[in-house]
Amino acid sequence: FVNGKFCKDPKFVTVDDFFKSGLNKAGTPNEKTGSVVTLVNVNQIPGLNTLGISIVRIDYAVNGQNPPHTHPRASEILYVAHGTLLVGFVTSNPENRLFSKVLNEGDVFVFPEGLVHFQANVGKYPAVAFAGLSSQNPGAIVIADTVFGSNPPIQPNVLAKAFQLDTRTVMDLQAKFKK
Amino acid sequence: FVNGKFCKDPKFVTVDDFFKSGLNKAGTPNEKTGSVVTLVNVNQIPGLNTLGISIVRIDYAVNGQNPPHTHPRASEILYVAHGTLLVGFVTSNPENRLFSKVLNEGDVFVFPEGLVHFQANVGKYPAVAFAGLSSQNPGAIVIADTVFGSNPPIQPNVLAKAFQLDTRTVMDLQAKFKK
Amino acid sequence: FVNGKFCKDPKFVTVDDFFKSGLNKAGTPNEKTGSVVTLVNVNQIPGLNTLGISIVRIDYAVNGQNPPHTHPRASEILYVAHGTLLVGFVTSNPENRLFSKVLNEGDVFVFPEGLVHFQANVGKYPAVAFAGLSSQNPGAIVIADTVFGSNPPIQPNVLAKAFQLDTRTVMDLQAKFKK
Amino acid sequence: FVNGKFCKDPKFVTVDDFFKSGLNKAGTPNEKTGSVVTLVNVNQIPGLNTLGISIVRIDYAVNGQNPPHTHPRASEILYVAHGTLLVGFVTSNPENRLFSKVLNEGDVFVFPEGLVHFQANVGKYPAVAFAGLSSQNPGAIVIADTVFGSNPPIQPNVLAKAFQLDTRTVMDLQAKFKK
Amino acid sequence: FVNGKFCKDPKFVTVDDFFKSGLNKAGTPNEKTGSVVTLVNVNQIPGLNTLGISIVRIDYAVNGQNPPHTHPRASEILYVAHGTLLVGFVTSNPENRLFSKVLNEGDVFVFPEGLVHFQANVGKYPAVAFAGLSSQNPGAIVIADTVFGSNPPIQPNVLAKAFQLDTRTVMDLQAKFKK
Amino acid sequence: FVNGKFCKDPKFVTVDDFFKSGLNKAGTPNEKTGSVVTLVNVNQIPGLNTLGISIVRIDYAVNGQNPPHTHPRASEILYVAHGTLLVGFVTSNPENRLFSKVLNEGDVFVFPEGLVHFQANVGKYPAVAFAGLSSQNPGAIVIADTVFGSNPPIQPNVLAKAFQLDTRTVMDLQAKFKK
Repeated sequence: FVNGKFCKDPKFVTVDDFFKSGLNKAGTPNEKTGSVVTLVNVNQIPGLNTLGISIVRIDYAVNGQNPPHTHPRASEILYVAHGTLLVGFVTSNPENRLFSKVLNEGDVFVFPEGLVHFQANVGKYPAVAFAGLSSQNPGAIVIADTVFGSNPPIQPNVLAKAFQLDTRTVMDLQAKFKK
Repeated sequence: FVNGKFCKDPKFVTVDDFFKSGLNKAGTPNEKTGSVVTLVNVNQIPGLNTLGISIVRIDYAVNGQNPPHTHPRASEILYVAHGTLLVGFVTSNPENRLFSKVLNEGDVFVFPEGLVHFQANVGKYPAVAFAGLSSQNPGAIVIADTVFGSNPPIQPNVLAKAFQLDTRTVMDLQAKFKK
Repeated sequence: FVNGKFCKDPKFVTVDDFFKSGLNKAGTPNEKTGSVVTLVNVNQIPGLNTLGISIVRIDYAVNGQNPPHTHPRASEILYVAHGTLLVGFVTSNPENRLFSKVLNEGDVFVFPEGLVHFQANVGKYPAVAFAGLSSQNPGAIVIADTVFGSNPPIQPNVLAKAFQLDTRTVMDLQAKFKK
Repeated sequence: FVNGKFCKDPKFVTVDDFFKSGLNKAGTPNEKTGSVVTLVNVNQIPGLNTLGISIVRIDYAVNGQNPPHTHPRASEILYVAHGTLLVGFVTSNPENRLFSKVLNEGDVFVFPEGLVHFQANVGKYPAVAFAGLSSQNPGAIVIADTVFGSNPPIQPNVLAKAFQLDTRTVMDLQAKFKK
Repeated sequence: FVNGKFCKDPKFVTVDDFFKSGLNKAGTPNEKTGSVVTLVNVNQIPGLNTLGISIVRIDYAVNGQNPPHTHPRASEILYVAHGTLLVGFVTSNPENRLFSKVLNEGDVFVFPEGLVHFQANVGKYPAVAFAGLSSQNPGAIVIADTVFGSNPPIQPNVLAKAFQLDTRTVMDLQAKFKK
Repeated sequence: FVNGKFCKDPKFVTVDDFFKSGLNKAGTPNEKTGSVVTLVNVNQIPGLNTLGISIVRIDYAVNGQNPPHTHPRASEILYVAHGTLLVGFVTSNPENRLFSKVLNEGDVFVFPEGLVHFQANVGKYPAVAFAGLSSQNPGAIVIADTVFGSNPPIQPNVLAKAFQLDTRTVMDLQAKFKK
């Protein structure tokens, strides 16, 4: 039905299975990062199942950032609706080349699937961006949360060696990122 | 390089291969339809190659519409930035069921890959929407242009029978849609 | 089992899950279009699940046609078994180029995925074609049925503007295509 | 162009890039097998590139067969146009279950991707079938030709052990299948 | 959960769903072929579901072989841990070209998806190889078992013609490969 | 040729396009991480093109580790040939759940595509593992190198906020990871 892939019994599918309101409302930025991502994916719109697309709104407080992260299942195309953002992504081993740019209102930028990327509000006012992602369920791996805030924690000495930090510093970070 | 798929010699890839400005500017609506679609796909951003995503901005004059069309290679997720839009899509044979809704600012709606869909400005002011599409090159088949405005034209008697119109009416339509 | 993808408990799969008879029988053409499509897809042969292929037989009365339509999930390769058919497909926006040809018995023609295409019997006798499609569930969007015969109907003024017809003509068409 | 994937410069694409005639003509069966397969794939129709579909005609002399083979890149749906065919496919290790049936005119049968299958004319007259395949370049691995007729030959003692034949018999087979 | 694709309720997924022990243990070679394949695919590790990868260990007695076979859903990359193996694969119709080589400890060789391939121990000692396959459920079609050992058997006269053997010899082979 | 996808002119393809020797040789571990990864992908074996598989050997010094990293285009199945490894992967936002286990010789473990994972030698002797990856070009994003060692560096204040470190510490890390 619809596209031969929808899971619900066609009799019970309604137009609201393809709809979500409220993406014009700013979210409340997280205190630590100063940003908030409002997701509209298959969990909000069941009709997105199998369609390979989703959208997010990102609000950035002054000095806020959407910290370095990857989407394991999607590329991203970002549109700056308001404000000034420093954005970047880093290519894979061994080049680890940073592609970075300051974006203003109306600018569009692309983050290729699986690469580490970030956006930081470097303007004087709050900023807003919208982004399309090439999956109905892109996933997000926030690097700091994954590495230092996993549950249970990764062994501190493993992280100490990986990040060339002393074990004490790693344990402090783990305390900070614990949820 | 970048994602193992980019066509350019890595030495010559720059950050601007992932960037495009100007999507905050309203386009000039087409006189007949009262709408205009500003594309940002792989033709505007070469770094989108293989990434499976693109974005468009659509401006609608009062009473304007983005007429019935399909994207042969993409699903679409639409966000209403300003205004009031009547949107809809029709499922395939034999149900031909119309899913339709009036959207307001902040609403999100989904058009599944390959299905005929449209948006019409039913508000008192110009409207603006942004949409993510699940392909770097989605394609667009505008039904009226394709059927009545092809180059060369489809034989009028074929269209007359298909649309249960007399041949004279078909030829008039073909004159109107000729470019 | 079979190919690691079949849904049925392997114990209960039989050879008849891969079989269907009767495709040598002409169907009864629809009165309005003068054609009939006999489908053999995953709904007729459950063993087609995940296999990405199906077949159809199309019978055309004298002056009959398989009207302009798209398959949202399949390309098509058509073989003319009997008769003479005018066939064509139209490329996407902005070219809308028509590729068209008169086919005779033994000719093979290709309709790329998602593009609008048609076949019309332009010979003196009934015609028969067989076609392979690259999906176990290709779907069919018949343009006139979808646009003018949807359930519920699309708002007449939307269609009037899209097709540059007066609203009265649109409503007449909607009455004709109503099922 | 056409579908965003065609390799030729669009200016030089013509309708004949989507066309091939002559599939109504019986081929001349191979003397040994008593069958002949006439291919219409991307090598005959360049417009099939990326479309994931092709068609073949198979002619079977009395007692002829299309011997056990696999298509490494396609499933197949077969339509019997004339005659009576014993067809079958064998599932993979460890079941090796044979699904087999005698088909008559008008019957349709499915051979899942990658599985060994065959058709044998068990009727009193020549037979004809048409088949759709889910690739523009399906490939064919004829078991006997591949195993006993490779160039250069597989070491006879390897085949002797695999097929539990004496080396002399293997070398005789290799002489028979040498081209 | 995990990768948005895992079937189990996330609450009940444990680390052991991604784990299997014992691949350092040699299996007991089959008496006829002199080899044994120890599989680690989605049937042994449920966490492999949708991941597109699996691993096998192959033990070869002196003069043992992994007889000609195909994987209908995977390419294979083989690493020789101990011993000396003659390996080969044959390309598809009409070339049937054999690519063959003697491998020693530490050598890596590739068998493309769907092609007939084999390994034979041509050294003086037992051999061991490990191989990665590009599917969580690659399947294996052992040519001799499939052709001569199917259940029920393929009609002997079909095989006799296909392999240019007399029917008596075919029936003897079918008796040998019957399980 | 071979599988209809190989780039080289078939006349010039040889068996060595599918072959690589030397994977039995231990590499020299990197001084900082105490590990070394020896790659056998499409850059070493051109015949792997399009085949969706590759293999690596990983050598771990005592106390060495393959630090937290992702493969943006592949899942991984790891086999421990010698030694004792602590391995783990972390699921995506918001759970960030760590799946971790100590592996011994003969154990197999799976790392799903795109997730952050690591292996650390926790035994008394050097360790060796082999891993299959579900891509001919998996890519590797080593988290610490990407985040702190990119070229050019990411702005220190961005990283300071993301990792809740002071800017001085970030700049020290950037100096350590600079290449």
